[in-house]
Amino acid sequence: MHGPIERKDIMTSTSTRRPVIALHGGCGVMSRALLSEAEWADARADIREALKAGYAILSSGGPAVAAVEACVMVLEDSPHFNAGHGATLNAAGQHELDASIMDGATGLAGAVAGARAVRNPVRLARRLMEQNIPMMLAGPAADEYAAARGLETMPQAYFTTPRRAEALATMRAHDRLGTFASESEKHGTVGAVALDCDGNLAAATSTGGFANKAVGRVGDSAIIGAGTYARNGVCAVSCTGQGEQFIRHVVAHEIAARIRYEHRPLADAVCAILAEAFTPHGIGGGVIAIDQAGTISAEFNTEGMFRGWIDAEGTLFVATHRD
Amino acid sequence: MHGPIERKDIMTSTSTRRPVIALHGGCGVMSRALLSEAEWADARADIREALKAGYAILSSGGPAVAAVEACVMVLEDSPHFNAGHGATLNAAGQHELDASIMDGATGLAGAVAGARAVRNPVRLARRLMEQNIPMMLAGPAADEYAAARGLETMPQAYFTTPRRAEALATMRAHDRLGTFASESEKHGTVGAVALDCDGNLAAATSTGGFANKAVGRVGDSAIIGAGTYARNGVCAVSCTGQGEQFIRHVVAHEIAARIRYEHRPLADAVCAILAEAFTPHGIGGGVIAIDQAGTISAEFNTEGMFRGWIDAEGTLFVATHRD
Repeated sequence: MHGPIERKDIMTSTSTRRPVIALHGGCGVMSRALLSEAEWADARADIREALKAGYAILSSGGPAVAAVEACVMVLEDSPHFNAGHGATLNAAGQHELDASIMDGATGLAGAVAGARAVRNPVRLARRLMEQNIPMMLAGPAADEYAAARGLETMPQAYFTTPRRAEALATMRAHDRLGTFASESEKHGTVGAVALDCDGNLAAATSTGGFANKAVGRVGDSAIIGAGTYARNGVCAVSCTGQGEQFIRHVVAHEIAARIRYEHRPLADAVCAILAEAFTPHGIGGGVIAIDQAGTISAEFNTEGMFRGWIDAEGTLFVATHRD
Repeated sequence: MHGPIERKDIMTSTSTRRPVIALHGGCGVMSRALLSEAEWADARADIREALKAGYAILSSGGPAVAAVEACVMVLEDSPHFNAGHGATLNAAGQHELDASIMDGATGLAGAVAGARAVRNPVRLARRLMEQNIPMMLAGPAADEYAAARGLETMPQAYFTTPRRAEALATMRAHDRLGTFASESEKHGTVGAVALDCDGNLAAATSTGGFANKAVGRVGDSAIIGAGTYARNGVCAVSCTGQGEQFIRHVVAHEIAARIRYEHRPLADAVCAILAEAFTPHGIGGGVIAIDQAGTISAEFNTEGMFRGWIDAEGTLFVATHRD
């Protein structure tokens, strides 16, 4: 059973400002049959672990950008989410991984598109962020850069899980028959947003894209402004869903613009863009966002979205479907 | 001599709405010694030809998105601009080409990063725009896609000009000596924006990046929201300068957001972002933009920017340096 919303007191920060972290693990149809009972439980356990990994950094006074990196790395290492280990397979039966990260304190960002070997694409994105130029690498050069800087690389087989291999076979069968696959295995992305004790915001996103995607396809998870954006004083945003629509609508930055210039509340800005650009077109999308006050928004127009957060009171929430 | 600002009456549209097109050919130090007298004249002639190619489509009632594509293709084919033929060489002595295009009427967009063979990357971006998903391809897959759809591909040598080969050698010498190269050969991008007789806006951008750039580096010219953005009722924008800064500040979309939500005039929005995010950091940048009323903005914080436009009165302007 995918289970109810969990709520548990974790710990209370002792600093003046209370840190907050939130994550998503992708949105979609998410029927019960998608995962076995044990897998639903495992996925939820991994969400808790990812939140705690990020929160441990925040509660010891560490920066939001390190917290979102650590949080996303746990999800990348989990087989249950479409990023890193467990990423979808493209049309050539390979993994091409996109990720990006942005530090709202400095305005610096890093991005990677089409990596095939780096174990944790979000870590590579952070390395690129720190070096300033180039801040974005695509293709084999991204993996070479990672290897040269001592980041762990893995063979393609490491990223493949039986579930993703089955999904690709199903997608290919649908293509042959001219039928449509369900959306349930198509999309999926992981991401995190955080507010640290110094009041800094950060966001990070990582994905394998969608099953049977074209080789070389770049999605919004690699694009600053589309899938990822953070700016101190405004918000931090990570998106999931049909990447092309997020790129065209520059969604993460659009949410920030509505808060900054229209003075809309966070949830209002997030819901408006989903209602305008996604729902009317039957396109699925989900967003995790946090504002400068630590308010969390976790919205989606699909059946469900893996999500969780630890709020300013130190309370941990995990959920997968609508309340 | 790089010459004065030109002004010439071209033609007057007979339709109720008067079309407008504007282009840039990159910004930078642009010392006189950068080009020979004949080359300055040639570059200006190519700007005129590019404007006329786009305007011919507009004045016969064609769409803005076709006009910016045609305009940018002329600049890609010219040896004088850093896009297509005449593109800079990367650290491996190769060309990797970025381009993007956006149709403000439909909100559709297309993008390509790190293409090495397609003769006109902007044409490939438009093809990707038309197919919806994927809308962005990176690396060899972009060239394979182009070739499979009958777009012309060329050997790498086609893109190389003696000027770019010299620039790479100079950059490498500076690297060896630990000295800094001048900015003059470092950046450069081409782009166009247009308003058609039906009131539709569009923008397109294309570049070889910067000399001696890392293999696999993706710049803002490939990123919707950063280097290129168009939305009917708001504006169309194409950027040039240090791509990383344009990506972090999501510049093209930021300009649109300030017009849309702050109700700022176009020139005000363009100047504000250059003044905030570029000039204080000593980072060069330039922007060509047009709003729904056909107002053109061509701003840069460098010594010069190749630029030109045909305004609503059908008058053609060409300029390279400050007035």
